[in-house]
Amino acid sequence: MGSLAVHSKKHKVCVVGSGNWGTTIAKVVAENVKAHSEVFEEEVQMWVFEEEYQIPKNSRHYDAGSATSSKPQKLTELINGLHENVKYLPDIELPRNIVANPDIADAVKDASILVFNLPHQFIAKACDQIKGKIIPFARGISCVKGVEVSESGCELFSESIGNKLGIYCGALSGANIATEVALEKFSETTVAYDPPPMDSKFPTPSGTPGGSPHGSQIDLTKLTDGQVKDSGNKKPKLQAMPTEYPPLHHRNMKKLFHRPYFHVRMVSDVAGVSLGGALKNIVAIAAGFVDGLGWGDNAKAAVMRTGIMEEVKFGKMFFGDSVHTRTFTEESCGVADMITSCSGGRNFRCAKMSVQEGKSIGEIEKRELNGQQLQGTGTAYEVNAFLRKEGKEQEFPLFTAVYNILEGKKKPQDIPDLIETKDE
Amino acid sequence: MGSLAVHSKKHKVCVVGSGNWGTTIAKVVAENVKAHSEVFEEEVQMWVFEEEYQIPKNSRHYDAGSATSSKPQKLTELINGLHENVKYLPDIELPRNIVANPDIADAVKDASILVFNLPHQFIAKACDQIKGKIIPFARGISCVKGVEVSESGCELFSESIGNKLGIYCGALSGANIATEVALEKFSETTVAYDPPPMDSKFPTPSGTPGGSPHGSQIDLTKLTDGQVKDSGNKKPKLQAMPTEYPPLHHRNMKKLFHRPYFHVRMVSDVAGVSLGGALKNIVAIAAGFVDGLGWGDNAKAAVMRTGIMEEVKFGKMFFGDSVHTRTFTEESCGVADMITSCSGGRNFRCAKMSVQEGKSIGEIEKRELNGQQLQGTGTAYEVNAFLRKEGKEQEFPLFTAVYNILEGKKKPQDIPDLIETKDE
Repeated sequence: MGSLAVHSKKHKVCVVGSGNWGTTIAKVVAENVKAHSEVFEEEVQMWVFEEEYQIPKNSRHYDAGSATSSKPQKLTELINGLHENVKYLPDIELPRNIVANPDIADAVKDASILVFNLPHQFIAKACDQIKGKIIPFARGISCVKGVEVSESGCELFSESIGNKLGIYCGALSGANIATEVALEKFSETTVAYDPPPMDSKFPTPSGTPGGSPHGSQIDLTKLTDGQVKDSGNKKPKLQAMPTEYPPLHHRNMKKLFHRPYFHVRMVSDVAGVSLGGALKNIVAIAAGFVDGLGWGDNAKAAVMRTGIMEEVKFGKMFFGDSVHTRTFTEESCGVADMITSCSGGRNFRCAKMSVQEGKSIGEIEKRELNGQQLQGTGTAYEVNAFLRKEGKEQEFPLFTAVYNILEGKKKPQDIPDLIETKDE
Repeated sequence: MGSLAVHSKKHKVCVVGSGNWGTTIAKVVAENVKAHSEVFEEEVQMWVFEEEYQIPKNSRHYDAGSATSSKPQKLTELINGLHENVKYLPDIELPRNIVANPDIADAVKDASILVFNLPHQFIAKACDQIKGKIIPFARGISCVKGVEVSESGCELFSESIGNKLGIYCGALSGANIATEVALEKFSETTVAYDPPPMDSKFPTPSGTPGGSPHGSQIDLTKLTDGQVKDSGNKKPKLQAMPTEYPPLHHRNMKKLFHRPYFHVRMVSDVAGVSLGGALKNIVAIAAGFVDGLGWGDNAKAAVMRTGIMEEVKFGKMFFGDSVHTRTFTEESCGVADMITSCSGGRNFRCAKMSVQEGKSIGEIEKRELNGQQLQGTGTAYEVNAFLRKEGKEQEFPLFTAVYNILEGKKKPQDIPDLIETKDE
């Protein structure tokens, strides 16, 4: 079914970010652009926040006889010279078509696909630095898990990126522990991608039941993606991809991420994919609480199931019909990510220890995380502030229970009673 | 919303079976009939396959000075005297309203609710012994997990019980490790119950889209359940519950099983509930294989997610629209039972050991299970024989992969390739 049309241009990809997960995704993408050279240019730019790095003496890259080995070197030079991110993804060989670039504006130049994979607190600054320097019809994919929730509302990271840059931005999320993916151990992921139709021949789906830019069921392979859309809402005007480029429908987007060891499923529900990655952290804390009580696997599974259903409810209540139940119940970004997070993630482990040792989760956090903060506690507080303001705390008994336990108002032992569905 | 109508009779309950899980369910039911005395009679009969049992010397019930303690005693007498099933559920105190009865025909006499909870190989004989001796309008609930799959087809245990006895039989299944439930550790379960309408005022749902006796969305609280239905299909004629009894709609059925530590969700999809309990065992073997390879949590979660989706497909393909996706993706009998089975169940553990030690699963089974057989391997072979006959092996790549690995035709390492969804 591949199109026989010849496109004079190919997509150039830039990965914005180079931490553990960013470098892993750059590796995946770099392998794929070589495998699909009919769609993508071979070189993959990877923006690296430049820093000096001293190769440790026990590293296989340390050369006692070399003058450079004995002093700190630029991380980009190390990555490009050794084809390894020695600081953030050591011992993983990177494809040679990855070019580490310390200049973010130069890295994104001419890229028609921008893959964002950096800590969420750096998103705003990175966008400021590249705004106006990207090609205006570029497409983004955010691998940054989570959403910004505050009393005033929820914003998806993909949305903030898209709005700041005036481009369409989808999302990638799944049960993806970075190191396992880097080692090419099998996993799945979910890519949500659903740009609004750019061609006036194709009506926007917002007028159809259940339709909206995020949840559209339009077959993107049929869109010509060839005209500027005058968007009637608050969203920025989006520029269509010129027809010189291969179309960026689901099939071509899948080619960018799918590997034999990293299976991609494409969906259109960007909000659902992003929410799953954030809300699961609250549930992982609840799972840790009941496991810490020694209640066993039945109880843990019940909490996980309840958590998935509250994710669905949250998505549908606050993001509308564009959010699909199946994103949470059937995709890697939902149920599978919930399973891994409740198996051994840090939210789960710290909550479990807090019950077992009779200490506050804050004490455990300080001891175990070396100054870092648990995502789950932060998200539990943010989501609660939002739900309280909306008057919806009662409709999310598990999320509310976690907040109240963290606050010392309830006990882990109360969870079954708090989440019980009572008749009459 | 409780009905103000006064019913002259109450429902009498018999639990048919008294193993580990049977005794646990009898305990749950006995607690509930006392709590809901407006609906149920207080005495709960429990049929016990009579045997002689010698109390061990280290038991708290062993009395060195007593003549009876030094010799084997009848199990029913021990249960009724000690209020404990010393052989199959030791150290758990049973409610005093449980009456252990060695005479199956006497146990079921006058029972309007029959809860079947015995090993599946004993179902046929038990039904033969009580056929014609039960009250004809009794309702059944099968707690026997699984389905009988053979080349010639799939039969649900609830169906075989119902057909043999000429009664309606629903199903109970969930993430329920018996000992944890007996210890009142928190868990959830799913009860599927959807008798066909008995009153001609209410049309049978089989003429409506998606309707069928199993999947009907009819609000059972509205059914008067008051007339004999002349069923037009192969099913036995069902007798309506006389109006002297409180109606057995979802709300009253839930009262029989729901406890503060054992949360019940009622559904109508009997086939889905039964299938989840059987097919998960195949998936647990696949999860054990990838975990045995050291592939980590991502891979295990991917296999579980894929397995849930194959369960859905199997249900819909062979049991029709009465089967709902959500039974597998949203209920305890589906996703939650999958999680517990892939966390530490025997199918998972033996499969994992077989990869780690490079031995066949049969060898591990012999060594670890003391003569018992894994359910997962049996189900994998039965399901494969059925799928092959139907020409549908290719549509269930994970189930088929497990069969082929058990047969030595494929390796655990091949799983990602075998389940990959390839475009074009």
